[in-house]
Amino acid sequence: MTHLDQLCVNAIRFLAADGVEQAKSGHPGMPMGMADAAYVLWTQFMTHSPSNPTWADRDRFILSAGHGSMLLYSLLYLTGYDLPLDELKRFRQWESKTPGHPEYGCAPGVETTTGPLGQGFATGVGMALATRLLKTRYNKPGHEIVDHQIYAIVSDGDLMEGVASEAASLAGHLGLSEIIYLYDDNQISIEGSTELAFTEDVGARFRAYNWFVQEVDGYDRAGIAAAIQAAQDETDRPSLIKVRSQIGYGAPHKGGTAEAHGAPLGTDELAAAKKALGWPTEPLFYVPDQALAHLRAAVEAGKADESHWNAQFEAYAADYPELAAEFTQRMSGELPEGWDADLPDFADTAKPLATRRASGQVINAISSKIPALVGGSADLAPSTSTMVSGGGDINRDAFEGVNLHFGVREHAMGAVLNGMALHGGFIPYGATFMVFSDYARPAVRLSALMGTHVVYVFTHDSLWLGEDGPTHQPVEHLAALRVIPNLTVIRPSDATETVEAWKVALTGKGPVALVLTRQHISILDRTKLAPASGLTQGAYVLADSEGTPDVILIASGSEVEVVLDAREILAEKGVQARVVAMPSWDLFEAQTDAYKESVLPAAVTARLAVEAGVSMGWDRYVGPKGAVIAVDRFGESAPYRTLMEKFGFTGAAVAEKAVEVVNGE
Amino acid sequence: MTHLDQLCVNAIRFLAADGVEQAKSGHPGMPMGMADAAYVLWTQFMTHSPSNPTWADRDRFILSAGHGSMLLYSLLYLTGYDLPLDELKRFRQWESKTPGHPEYGCAPGVETTTGPLGQGFATGVGMALATRLLKTRYNKPGHEIVDHQIYAIVSDGDLMEGVASEAASLAGHLGLSEIIYLYDDNQISIEGSTELAFTEDVGARFRAYNWFVQEVDGYDRAGIAAAIQAAQDETDRPSLIKVRSQIGYGAPHKGGTAEAHGAPLGTDELAAAKKALGWPTEPLFYVPDQALAHLRAAVEAGKADESHWNAQFEAYAADYPELAAEFTQRMSGELPEGWDADLPDFADTAKPLATRRASGQVINAISSKIPALVGGSADLAPSTSTMVSGGGDINRDAFEGVNLHFGVREHAMGAVLNGMALHGGFIPYGATFMVFSDYARPAVRLSALMGTHVVYVFTHDSLWLGEDGPTHQPVEHLAALRVIPNLTVIRPSDATETVEAWKVALTGKGPVALVLTRQHISILDRTKLAPASGLTQGAYVLADSEGTPDVILIASGSEVEVVLDAREILAEKGVQARVVAMPSWDLFEAQTDAYKESVLPAAVTARLAVEAGVSMGWDRYVGPKGAVIAVDRFGESAPYRTLMEKFGFTGAAVAEKAVEVVNGE
Repeated sequence: MTHLDQLCVNAIRFLAADGVEQAKSGHPGMPMGMADAAYVLWTQFMTHSPSNPTWADRDRFILSAGHGSMLLYSLLYLTGYDLPLDELKRFRQWESKTPGHPEYGCAPGVETTTGPLGQGFATGVGMALATRLLKTRYNKPGHEIVDHQIYAIVSDGDLMEGVASEAASLAGHLGLSEIIYLYDDNQISIEGSTELAFTEDVGARFRAYNWFVQEVDGYDRAGIAAAIQAAQDETDRPSLIKVRSQIGYGAPHKGGTAEAHGAPLGTDELAAAKKALGWPTEPLFYVPDQALAHLRAAVEAGKADESHWNAQFEAYAADYPELAAEFTQRMSGELPEGWDADLPDFADTAKPLATRRASGQVINAISSKIPALVGGSADLAPSTSTMVSGGGDINRDAFEGVNLHFGVREHAMGAVLNGMALHGGFIPYGATFMVFSDYARPAVRLSALMGTHVVYVFTHDSLWLGEDGPTHQPVEHLAALRVIPNLTVIRPSDATETVEAWKVALTGKGPVALVLTRQHISILDRTKLAPASGLTQGAYVLADSEGTPDVILIASGSEVEVVLDAREILAEKGVQARVVAMPSWDLFEAQTDAYKESVLPAAVTARLAVEAGVSMGWDRYVGPKGAVIAVDRFGESAPYRTLMEKFGFTGAAVAEKAVEVVNGE
Repeated sequence: MTHLDQLCVNAIRFLAADGVEQAKSGHPGMPMGMADAAYVLWTQFMTHSPSNPTWADRDRFILSAGHGSMLLYSLLYLTGYDLPLDELKRFRQWESKTPGHPEYGCAPGVETTTGPLGQGFATGVGMALATRLLKTRYNKPGHEIVDHQIYAIVSDGDLMEGVASEAASLAGHLGLSEIIYLYDDNQISIEGSTELAFTEDVGARFRAYNWFVQEVDGYDRAGIAAAIQAAQDETDRPSLIKVRSQIGYGAPHKGGTAEAHGAPLGTDELAAAKKALGWPTEPLFYVPDQALAHLRAAVEAGKADESHWNAQFEAYAADYPELAAEFTQRMSGELPEGWDADLPDFADTAKPLATRRASGQVINAISSKIPALVGGSADLAPSTSTMVSGGGDINRDAFEGVNLHFGVREHAMGAVLNGMALHGGFIPYGATFMVFSDYARPAVRLSALMGTHVVYVFTHDSLWLGEDGPTHQPVEHLAALRVIPNLTVIRPSDATETVEAWKVALTGKGPVALVLTRQHISILDRTKLAPASGLTQGAYVLADSEGTPDVILIASGSEVEVVLDAREILAEKGVQARVVAMPSWDLFEAQTDAYKESVLPAAVTARLAVEAGVSMGWDRYVGPKGAVIAVDRFGESAPYRTLMEKFGFTGAAVAEKAVEVVNGE
């Protein structure tokens, strides 16, 4: 048995090293060092079904140290996922399923995209939170239909990143015992020994976060198993198991040094490592039949586990048909029927309303209809209007509610949203001030890269938040979000468009950023203007001229009412202006050329865009004869109406500029 | 004496509350809660000179909890800085010196811009590091010319932010005992009790980081003094003093609740608070003469301290004239004469060279000439080429060197750079992969907002980093950096331009981001092409057509050699192309219209921009008849030459597209 175990461990180890060697690129050290621990975890503890990688009650495994991707690919191949050995041989090559870092949606069994350090760690916290929330809502005595763990391998680099600190504190706060993380404590980072920059007492730090911390030798497989077992038995706290390992284990010269980290070992050193561990030096990608058979047992074991669960679920459905149906519906990712029945209609509301407040009303109206909708704010719930009234707080002793409290942890919030969405059963949302979207940005990028269905609620969306001043006034953020591929950014013009924006966010599949005002703005009179549903096309003619317009005024968000004012002023001067509301460049770019031409006809070159942010990108829509009233500088601290005057965002100032544009000045 | 102390404390407390009340906006709770601690610190420990706020050896004070800005403004006014009471009355108003959050460069005595949580905390670590480095280099037995502390008031919110965790770990690692932070432990965050989201054991966490942690009652002034004294006596570790306080101290109803945090108390509650603490309810902004006189003693005390230091420095200069001259020179912010004498010249280098490697050679060539130049990488020194050979590592027991090891802490790195630059005596640089500029982004924004003289070295600047794949391939980052006001972004075309880019970075005053290739690229033959000094104008004609060009090809960085190839191919087809190298939009936009027209003549509308990043923003330069070869999606994992083929970044593909543009297709 020990011999077979050793055979399997080395198969994992050297498949990984061989993949890197063949690619002439990659990270052999981590997989070689952690092969033993990974083997123990995957064969003795992980409940998963390689033939059905999306089985709802599987344990999730995250390789937070994503640079060690060949470890994961080796495990997936060896345990029988649909990832042929040929794909491992094409590691890091064009259109292979084995990219340099694990990419969600590429190889089956990759639960999340990792590589940017700290993200996997924090994303796992979201998965654990999702698990706990589902357990609380759906499990019943004798029916443990949600019963899985979130495992990860995390590295020194992960633990140094702030996002992991934020997520660890939150996980400890919530007592998420679903988390069992193996920390690859190899004492090596890229620049050399961790003594160079990382000498904190990691165990003490995690205990301070309320984690259960253990320490084991990375090659004592019985010890590793005992530690994982103890972690499973712990029901109050997340677990961190410090696995003392050697990077590049087996490599006689590079093992234990930074040289084993990020480049192939080289033919000689790899051969020497194989010899040292009693492994044939040829061929590359050698896997003994015996090892493969042993590891492939995961397929049948997984099928058996899954059948058992299916039977359990049937029994559950018999006893709790409504809950079972709801669970199934949630895990499908579809919205329940009638989810939009109670959406607010602001058409008859005369009083100006901040779009953050309109958004809050939407959330409150749909919360009870969409159990998957769970979210909160990074300690700004009152300001971002993201609290569901009567929805209940989620806290260590209460997972029945829908209101999350992320603390002042924007970055972890983003990663947790990703984890919840990836887990399934949730359309999570997270809120902060727009300017602090920067803090969450690496997680937002991963939302976009993975296409997770999450909603970012970014309020206080411009200089017009006023007195808090430049540190809190987003200027470049709208542009900075627009440049992220696959992220749909929407800045609605008023309360009615805010409802439409939420519809887009919920009925779509990928991430959406809602960009909302702090200040109250007019609710547009849709009896005189085009309907708010135009938002779905990204830009639309809100108010038109009679005949060909002399000038097209384009705006988003709170600037729409400003250009409408300008239109009136221009009309008095005999200048015919079309007003285009442009809440979303992303949605507009997805339209046909014919539609685009109908909104922004090429023949009308006198165009003026008005937006309280940097001008970059607007040239595409205004062209060389157009102009932009923008804010290409940082803001100022003052009441917002003063700022609007000073920065030229008034109907009069816009009208004046529009006349200049018409006159070609 | 106790009576006078109490009078002073309440003067601080109620000036702050009155400022918020008058502005009808702001955060009264924190100043009211921490007035006692701030008073003790400022009157018994802070060495500063209100009449000369930039005195080199002053203690630095940071209000990391920047929302409590009125506390700082009160202290500055009361201790005699050039901040009249009238400015406090104009808190948060247009063009006042008292913006909503403390802004560097606005009121004297504001050492750094704060408000975005965690930044002040981490910036202070940079100031402390700067202090320690200067101490090590300049202090001599009997000559302690650098002898100051970095004080801060930090909040729950600061400590929740990942950037503070990163910085705390780094500060503990380095044993920066210059740091003495008062933690306003008021147990309230915006959403309510910190029990909602923040229940970690802060003290244990900071001890794990190697900090000296104490705990005191926020209204036991003797206890606070004793704790600060003990922190000063601690020479091995940074200090965190947990000050148990009550937010809105004195306010009978709102005190101790989230309601005291972010809005004026209201007339009645403010009056009630004043009554409760024996303070006259009228007038607003009341300061007893006795209190003012006592606090204003700081002016004369500061002058005396400064004279004493000046005398000390004279004695030092007599004994160590060279060091004294160097110190003075460094603190002036100017570059030493002859700093550029040994800059590398790549003109005769035929072999292609990655611009990150060229940058590394520049750093190594100038390091010994510019003692202020200190920097490093977030655990990527070998990859980013930022290590000075023989320069010495900076570590807990060695502060003589110039090579910093930030660990995998990009965000703290950015803030530490800001702190070092703000302290004075340093032009710090920090490096990471371009894609991870996102992790540091909130600190980069503050660099731009404050105008700190720091250099960001972002390498691996495009898809062409290859196999690491989409997680590591910046696509949107160049655009996302370009949108930040006041940040000069430079992507040099080759090694020779890299030298020019470093010159711009060093001779300027604000932050610069250098965007550099991983892969080797040709060194352009300047005997046939325009000189690299064209970089200083942001864009320049690198190779021209005879007569009016048929098409203008524009590119930056590694794409310049691609468009040069295309130009050759086009020439064979009889199409005359001008090639414009455009390393910096920011520098180009600062040129005259005449210069811009000379580079991109309006008459030539056939233009093609080529850049391995998103297209957003390029419309400004190519116009509606132009085109952009860009990457408006995430990348792929594969060798970079494969990627260049697949994504259309070859001379042939560019030439083909250029012909289409010329033909108006």
